[in-house]
Amino acid sequence: MTDFDYQQLDDIIHSRIRLAIMALLASLETAEFTYIREKIGATDGNLSVHLKKLEEAEYITVTKTFVDRKPVTIYTLNKKGRKAFELYVERLEQLLKQSNRFGVEEKK
Amino acid sequence: MTDFDYQQLDDIIHSRIRLAIMALLASLETAEFTYIREKIGATDGNLSVHLKKLEEAEYITVTKTFVDRKPVTIYTLNKKGRKAFELYVERLEQLLKQSNRFGVEEKK
Repeated sequence: MTDFDYQQLDDIIHSRIRLAIMALLASLETAEFTYIREKIGATDGNLSVHLKKLEEAEYITVTKTFVDRKPVTIYTLNKKGRKAFELYVERLEQLLKQSNRFGVEEKK
Repeated sequence: MTDFDYQQLDDIIHSRIRLAIMALLASLETAEFTYIREKIGATDGNLSVHLKKLEEAEYITVTKTFVDRKPVTIYTLNKKGRKAFELYVERLEQLLKQSNRFGVEEKK
């Protein structure tokens, strides 16, 4: 395996919307459905599908509760999810570091 | 748009295999088909499809030439591609930075 091997990147995390969800939850620990939707910029249906996928991978934990008698769904990045996210970011950084320090530097 | 808006990430680059190709080409300027295939760990068919997509987006330039009378295809990350890659990495970093410095730090 080289650092450029694309299969080293966790496919469950590496979708734009799921990556955004994971990054958001990593920063917050927990978040409510509507808050995630706003931050991510996703539609209800699309967000549901991807949250489900992350739940099935056991990266996030879903809790249904009531706030002011209204049903609220809370999503938490759990231990397995955090570990997976850290590994993903580590490998992503490794991949990008190969490309001339993120390719930002101009050739002199 | 928030930093977590997933649509800020260039969809053409953000596929595991195309990201690996872009990172590899950003580090090398040019590379031959078989070299990319080995580094990325892709099959011929799969690699062709994704190189085609990057070529159609005008991110890479394809040159057919001969080496020792054998046909060789060379791929180059062009100016537009490099710019797109830099923007992509910048936004990706922004997204990940939000998540508690890449989520690596443990809560004390």
